[in-house]
Amino acid sequence: MAHISIIGSGNMGQAIAGLVGKSGETVEVLGSSDAERVVTGDIVVLAVPYPAVGQIIAQRGAQLAGKVVVDITNPLDFETFDSLVVPADSSATAEIAAALPESRVIKAFNTNFAATLATGTVNGRPTTVLLAGDDADAKTALALVISAAGLRAVDAGDLRRARELEAVGFLQLTLAVGEKTSWTGGFALAD
Amino acid sequence: MAHISIIGSGNMGQAIAGLVGKSGETVEVLGSSDAERVVTGDIVVLAVPYPAVGQIIAQRGAQLAGKVVVDITNPLDFETFDSLVVPADSSATAEIAAALPESRVIKAFNTNFAATLATGTVNGRPTTVLLAGDDADAKTALALVISAAGLRAVDAGDLRRARELEAVGFLQLTLAVGEKTSWTGGFALAD
Repeated sequence: MAHISIIGSGNMGQAIAGLVGKSGETVEVLGSSDAERVVTGDIVVLAVPYPAVGQIIAQRGAQLAGKVVVDITNPLDFETFDSLVVPADSSATAEIAAALPESRVIKAFNTNFAATLATGTVNGRPTTVLLAGDDADAKTALALVISAAGLRAVDAGDLRRARELEAVGFLQLTLAVGEKTSWTGGFALAD
Repeated sequence: MAHISIIGSGNMGQAIAGLVGKSGETVEVLGSSDAERVVTGDIVVLAVPYPAVGQIIAQRGAQLAGKVVVDITNPLDFETFDSLVVPADSSATAEIAAALPESRVIKAFNTNFAATLATGTVNGRPTTVLLAGDDADAKTALALVISAAGLRAVDAGDLRRARELEAVGFLQLTLAVGEKTSWTGGFALAD
């Protein structure tokens, strides 16, 4: 059994909490008024916008030691919608992993719109959640939760691949804003 | 009517030639033994691996002036399969556009496996071809050919978005090599 903490109660946090509920694992959701509550999960999902991650690390870095930490962010420059705010040869996940050396940081969910996590489908097929990270056990632990909820988890590789996952997430957001794909759609990975 | 030249007779060149044939436009395919033939198309598809593009530009740069030039490459380091060979803040398309200032260079087809261009479908839905480039007319000219062939063309934005298209192409290749998706599949964009 896994116990999952979700920091952030927005659309993505709620959708991931629903997914965990379907998986049969236990979940707690910590919102912005829960800064004093200690996270109890083995897996902690940072379901907040990238600019808010730094404060969470400052507040909770010690609590996250030894845990699987899941970065779901798309670090866009939301003023221009034309670039990311992380260095071109890095990724938000790499930056977070550097700031949390005692945690096992993985990327997941950033290529999924919230609606596709809630329904579990894109175009009538199971939603694929792409994962990246250097710790195979951490990826497996999260993949089991995702699979138990009826979605498909795909290991996209090591932490370096977070950069490409963030490019996919960025592109997908621009396509949805431009009405080239719907917020219930986006990219689906064929089997 | 458009007339399309395809430089390169490999899997991708053949698949794109077949697509043009379905569209009702005219096509010529120039292979490696056709170095002396002058390209006659209004739209010229560089259907060769990225390392071969430099020689084509050296041979045919002057012929390509004024034409729409389509870059389909995924500039992977094929020895490591772990990075691209273009700078992290650039793209193959940007490099080619810089080398062909008299041409209207666009990115297309790099996020499509050849089989999905030949069949026109991914997971039973029309294959989506993502385009990027700074010349709207050039993108429209190619999009009309793609649409006439029964596939879906989606304008993903200006030339800067070629970087994200190359990240998608790179990721998709690593997923296919790792058997996480099939060579008849890959990423499909939901409506």
